[in-house]
Amino acid sequence: MPEVLFRIDLNKPMDEQETPGHNRWHPDIPATVSVNPGDIFRVECKDWTDGQISNNDDPSDIRDVNLNRVHVLSGPIWVNGVEPGDLLVVDILDIGAIQGAEWGFNGVFDKQNGGSFLTEHYPEALKSVWDFQGIYTTSRHIPGVKFAGIIHPGLIGTAPSHEMLAKWNQREKKLFDSNPDRVPTLANLPTPDSAVLGTLKGAEFDRVAREGARTVPPRENGGNCDIKNLSKGSRIYFPVFVKGGKLSLGDIHFSQGDGEITFCGGIEMAGWVDLHVDVIKGGMSRYNVINNPMFKPGPVEPHYSDYLVFEGISVDEFTGDNHYLDAHIAYRRACLNAIEYLKTLGYTGEQAYMILGTAPVEGRINGIVDVPNACCTVAIPTAIFDKDILPKPNRQ
Amino acid sequence: MPEVLFRIDLNKPMDEQETPGHNRWHPDIPATVSVNPGDIFRVECKDWTDGQISNNDDPSDIRDVNLNRVHVLSGPIWVNGVEPGDLLVVDILDIGAIQGAEWGFNGVFDKQNGGSFLTEHYPEALKSVWDFQGIYTTSRHIPGVKFAGIIHPGLIGTAPSHEMLAKWNQREKKLFDSNPDRVPTLANLPTPDSAVLGTLKGAEFDRVAREGARTVPPRENGGNCDIKNLSKGSRIYFPVFVKGGKLSLGDIHFSQGDGEITFCGGIEMAGWVDLHVDVIKGGMSRYNVINNPMFKPGPVEPHYSDYLVFEGISVDEFTGDNHYLDAHIAYRRACLNAIEYLKTLGYTGEQAYMILGTAPVEGRINGIVDVPNACCTVAIPTAIFDKDILPKPNRQ
Amino acid sequence: MPEVLFRIDLNKPMDEQETPGHNRWHPDIPATVSVNPGDIFRVECKDWTDGQISNNDDPSDIRDVNLNRVHVLSGPIWVNGVEPGDLLVVDILDIGAIQGAEWGFNGVFDKQNGGSFLTEHYPEALKSVWDFQGIYTTSRHIPGVKFAGIIHPGLIGTAPSHEMLAKWNQREKKLFDSNPDRVPTLANLPTPDSAVLGTLKGAEFDRVAREGARTVPPRENGGNCDIKNLSKGSRIYFPVFVKGGKLSLGDIHFSQGDGEITFCGGIEMAGWVDLHVDVIKGGMSRYNVINNPMFKPGPVEPHYSDYLVFEGISVDEFTGDNHYLDAHIAYRRACLNAIEYLKTLGYTGEQAYMILGTAPVEGRINGIVDVPNACCTVAIPTAIFDKDILPKPNRQ
Amino acid sequence: MPEVLFRIDLNKPMDEQETPGHNRWHPDIPATVSVNPGDIFRVECKDWTDGQISNNDDPSDIRDVNLNRVHVLSGPIWVNGVEPGDLLVVDILDIGAIQGAEWGFNGVFDKQNGGSFLTEHYPEALKSVWDFQGIYTTSRHIPGVKFAGIIHPGLIGTAPSHEMLAKWNQREKKLFDSNPDRVPTLANLPTPDSAVLGTLKGAEFDRVAREGARTVPPRENGGNCDIKNLSKGSRIYFPVFVKGGKLSLGDIHFSQGDGEITFCGGIEMAGWVDLHVDVIKGGMSRYNVINNPMFKPGPVEPHYSDYLVFEGISVDEFTGDNHYLDAHIAYRRACLNAIEYLKTLGYTGEQAYMILGTAPVEGRINGIVDVPNACCTVAIPTAIFDKDILPKPNRQ
Repeated sequence: MPEVLFRIDLNKPMDEQETPGHNRWHPDIPATVSVNPGDIFRVECKDWTDGQISNNDDPSDIRDVNLNRVHVLSGPIWVNGVEPGDLLVVDILDIGAIQGAEWGFNGVFDKQNGGSFLTEHYPEALKSVWDFQGIYTTSRHIPGVKFAGIIHPGLIGTAPSHEMLAKWNQREKKLFDSNPDRVPTLANLPTPDSAVLGTLKGAEFDRVAREGARTVPPRENGGNCDIKNLSKGSRIYFPVFVKGGKLSLGDIHFSQGDGEITFCGGIEMAGWVDLHVDVIKGGMSRYNVINNPMFKPGPVEPHYSDYLVFEGISVDEFTGDNHYLDAHIAYRRACLNAIEYLKTLGYTGEQAYMILGTAPVEGRINGIVDVPNACCTVAIPTAIFDKDILPKPNRQ
Repeated sequence: MPEVLFRIDLNKPMDEQETPGHNRWHPDIPATVSVNPGDIFRVECKDWTDGQISNNDDPSDIRDVNLNRVHVLSGPIWVNGVEPGDLLVVDILDIGAIQGAEWGFNGVFDKQNGGSFLTEHYPEALKSVWDFQGIYTTSRHIPGVKFAGIIHPGLIGTAPSHEMLAKWNQREKKLFDSNPDRVPTLANLPTPDSAVLGTLKGAEFDRVAREGARTVPPRENGGNCDIKNLSKGSRIYFPVFVKGGKLSLGDIHFSQGDGEITFCGGIEMAGWVDLHVDVIKGGMSRYNVINNPMFKPGPVEPHYSDYLVFEGISVDEFTGDNHYLDAHIAYRRACLNAIEYLKTLGYTGEQAYMILGTAPVEGRINGIVDVPNACCTVAIPTAIFDKDILPKPNRQ
Repeated sequence: MPEVLFRIDLNKPMDEQETPGHNRWHPDIPATVSVNPGDIFRVECKDWTDGQISNNDDPSDIRDVNLNRVHVLSGPIWVNGVEPGDLLVVDILDIGAIQGAEWGFNGVFDKQNGGSFLTEHYPEALKSVWDFQGIYTTSRHIPGVKFAGIIHPGLIGTAPSHEMLAKWNQREKKLFDSNPDRVPTLANLPTPDSAVLGTLKGAEFDRVAREGARTVPPRENGGNCDIKNLSKGSRIYFPVFVKGGKLSLGDIHFSQGDGEITFCGGIEMAGWVDLHVDVIKGGMSRYNVINNPMFKPGPVEPHYSDYLVFEGISVDEFTGDNHYLDAHIAYRRACLNAIEYLKTLGYTGEQAYMILGTAPVEGRINGIVDVPNACCTVAIPTAIFDKDILPKPNRQ
Repeated sequence: MPEVLFRIDLNKPMDEQETPGHNRWHPDIPATVSVNPGDIFRVECKDWTDGQISNNDDPSDIRDVNLNRVHVLSGPIWVNGVEPGDLLVVDILDIGAIQGAEWGFNGVFDKQNGGSFLTEHYPEALKSVWDFQGIYTTSRHIPGVKFAGIIHPGLIGTAPSHEMLAKWNQREKKLFDSNPDRVPTLANLPTPDSAVLGTLKGAEFDRVAREGARTVPPRENGGNCDIKNLSKGSRIYFPVFVKGGKLSLGDIHFSQGDGEITFCGGIEMAGWVDLHVDVIKGGMSRYNVINNPMFKPGPVEPHYSDYLVFEGISVDEFTGDNHYLDAHIAYRRACLNAIEYLKTLGYTGEQAYMILGTAPVEGRINGIVDVPNACCTVAIPTAIFDKDILPKPNRQ
């Protein structure tokens, strides 16, 4: 087992850990650990909510979750010799659960506190709990479904520079200000409330807490991309914006459907990640990897061969209005179509929604030019069900 | 070889074919051929432009294409015993090129005549010609690239009812009217210009030509979904809106990247499709397949295992503005990132753009809830290149 | 469509074709057609028996087949500039059925005339007829089974030199002589009976007919390898033993299980193959490809993900004797185990046997060192059946 | 983490473990632990040699290994309610390395002490040591090779009945007696030397040690099948011969090529396996699973798509003699061909041999009826090498 750089005690909040992590992006959060290019090490992570959700049948903890506390990350990790303009190469060698905590949760946030992709359809908080049995998971809340997880860190990224942080805060403020009273909110602006900032203290803590970008959106540094395919064996090439790179990660998902449509989230868990790091000096300009990370997925994703696929187009389901090549709406309609189909198998809409949020479903942008309708699809592996889910023709 | 229901002469326009097809959606276009559930038959199709594009190096035919002529479809095909409320089951048994026409084209429309997904970046018409060598294709315009096509009809669908047609025309008119002068247009409204309507003649032709919906967008009947995975071996379940179902198809692609981002389009070709049809009586309500078709992909898609993946987030590349969970922009940024990377391999931006439009690249919606940024990815199979395209770490 | 080098009339025997092929290996069979490295061309092929088997329900044609007539091959094809010591690179670009002959047959030879892998268990001739529906096939003789074929030429090879031919004839004679009365025979020695030798005539025909090696076994030149994975998109590297290489092929299978255990054979068919050829000068010694061809499979084999796998060990099922690391017996036991299981689903042993001979089942050598038992497996894709074939635990 | 039924101390031999295992098959070895159908539990296992091999560069420990000590197994495990005639359903939920022992070894036995598949070509002992980095492994002894392991227990099985044990001993004795002086031996007969028999003591130990079958070969109970695809997520159906089933396992491989041709073995390691057990009452006769286990592989095997494939036929490489449909020789020739090719890349024959023994190479029986030559292939995934291993045509 590689050396553990961050060790987690599940009974303590993130700011009381032996090596406290952070839940804001800021270049001035100190890196308390360092590694060399070529090193292999382990990072333990708490679940993204810092332990706010319990293994029970009551979704009130989802409903009342303190969203200013998310995402608690392990990091930053300083990589010696890494400088702005380099590419930080990160191999995800393996991922697993913390011993004794082999379970996770999927939730749908309440419309009043976070919301979700289908919040107009499912406005109330929901929760399902998933037990891990080796590579498989099942939930007592969704019978007849079992699948191999495609485990991944939902959030992994390098630290922003001061300039990049300023840009983030400015553009998100601008969006927020365009409709400040919207529920759910258009953007989560910096707030000192519930901030965790590693070993920072005093005035410096206060300043960084005021300035630090929230971890919710994916950004130029990677961050909360929630890409289910960043699983075991992946190699990620991160742009580097600050000296040392300052890598952080967390928000481990045992599995997730494309889009993470339930928002809270895939199957959320505490866990560990084994990493190998390396550097490509000057790689950002050499390879034009400037705006976002690039990656090569690993070879051990569960491979399902049979899918049932649902289409959606960019026509709003409430108004009937056409929206010009809007892939968001098209994907929403595809997901709603899938849910309606799953209902005919005996699932409630809520259960079907959580299946789409947790199982390794594929969300694709199929047509994005056929004016005015985008076409998106959501593909469900049929083998995750314990019965045949295909329709039966009158004549085979 | 199954019986050929529609036979195509590539030297004649669609309205002069033995069995003329159509290029508008309308319930009153007569079905001149009929089949029974359980039947297997072949349908030949012209390329979607009705032969306007030539196998040469000059993109002026793309620039000047008559877009009122698209898409010329073979159909409608009447399926005996099929009624509104049923599901029409269509198996795509095989697809191939017309003998002697084993080539296709990919184009980027000019911003003034159609545009494309990246029209602000690549506003001028482009063209690449692709030669088919069995399952593989190469283009003299894009050296060093060779891949197995994932051949499919870009467009396949049932006929709308009068009510559905009226709804389409109304909602698209509403969108068009919101910015009638926009270039490219927000929606293509009905126009008698260049209409092809099967065997219709006289006043009935004129009426249907005025009313018939354009074939450009995907809609409730399937239509121009441009789903690359509707390939050999797929089974599609279509909602039925009119008696006989009235199935039509065309717009065959030898291959296409997800999104069909070049718009004109994947690798466009004339060809034939072998179909098997069946019916599930009352299937729409039984299975809640109401809004769009559903399908099961076939088992012989080319299987690549190594991909290089590019991420994009919903921040506009010109203004730097955040757009709330906008998957369209996120996918555009992912594609632009991929193009910038491919440039470092020696491709021009135009070539890279056409690689994304033609090769079996995967476009995914990865995160659609992480306020305010959607995260989309485009994944390029590395094996389509004749050299190693991965970056090289300083230390392996 | 590429130029057709060999054109087949299914109503004529091989020696009466426009360009007659051959059914013996001999360096002196003249090449009547030639191609250049880089060329693409089509070769049509009769079924391996030269049309002896009919599309009916009576296996007597299998029982009485003239095995001296097999395999009728299209070729030899001369490749300009190719010399002994080179590697002949052959790309299988595509394969298909002859129009109007979209069917094939699978047979089990009678023990008295050919035999088969399980001839002691199934000594009598059997036949099943398979209809092709695009990429899929079904048989009226084996209900409830449907699969995508992994189409391939069972036989493809270069011509032997005189020296190699002499070696073949000598070693096979030696084996034959070790038990000349065995039924089925240990080896098929040269015989003029039913020989087809291209355009050869007179005394030269007689000499070559007496000397020519039978096409039954795979040998150093490739030949009748019956490798199901030599399918569309494969690239084969053949050792070259004579000037011009003299490539020949035939014995097309719509599908075959590993081992081709029924012997007659996979799903046998007439068809066409599109080829591309190239040469690596001096490649045999440069790459040590001396003894047999080497190949890279194509990317469009049907991909099934769920298999049910049966094991076998090298203990004779009649005597109970152990045979030292005998993979032949181990695979036979695995196949017998699979057949016994399939019987519990309602199939007869004969049907089960033919499923293993035709469907894309995988035959593996798993352990070949665990003294004294070899372990082999046969893996059946579960999706080829129209029902769930897995056992059901008492407790799920 | 599930409850640990067997806990291993790597510093102690198997007979001194807290719960000692065994290295012989005998129905009278007591089961000291029991589980219920439906239970999930963990079993830790020593490497198969009981720790005889060291992590160094000296193969003398391979050469001098005490083969009477193998395979040390964890078990037997009693499953309550299981009786002869039932099928014992075993799910392999997950497998991993013992913390602090993330390495394994591959060896080739000396011809005088065990031998191997190619012992006539490589008669001397060889060793390579492999380090595990998450899902990947590399060896300092074989540069330029890295792959994802397909981890599996090489040995897992139920206990034989007294009748079955007698049959095993009799048939193996008969084989041994046919050539008792052969080196390597034809069969390993029972021997009290180095026997480990759980908690047995005294006269009972002596009796069982004299009678107990060696664990080397796969047999009706499963046992040492060395099937690389019995990896994470597999479900195995074992025939049950004694009350309680008495499941044992060990011989964990981080990876192995089909055939385990180096004999010692794949990449051998100590580790843990998480299991779930269930029962199908009366399943042996209901499903005709009588002679050997049957299994369904799991969904997370590493998936490589590009292979280079080497063929072999059943002609002896020393004598040039034909051997009638001998898959053992055909596979040996295929492996030798692969080794000769790998030499042209700069590997020694010894390194190439160990690549075939460790990497996830596929060994197939392709043709087993084409008298007199069997055709076997070995397929090497090209992505395990850090450079392109394909030959280059003169003309691309």
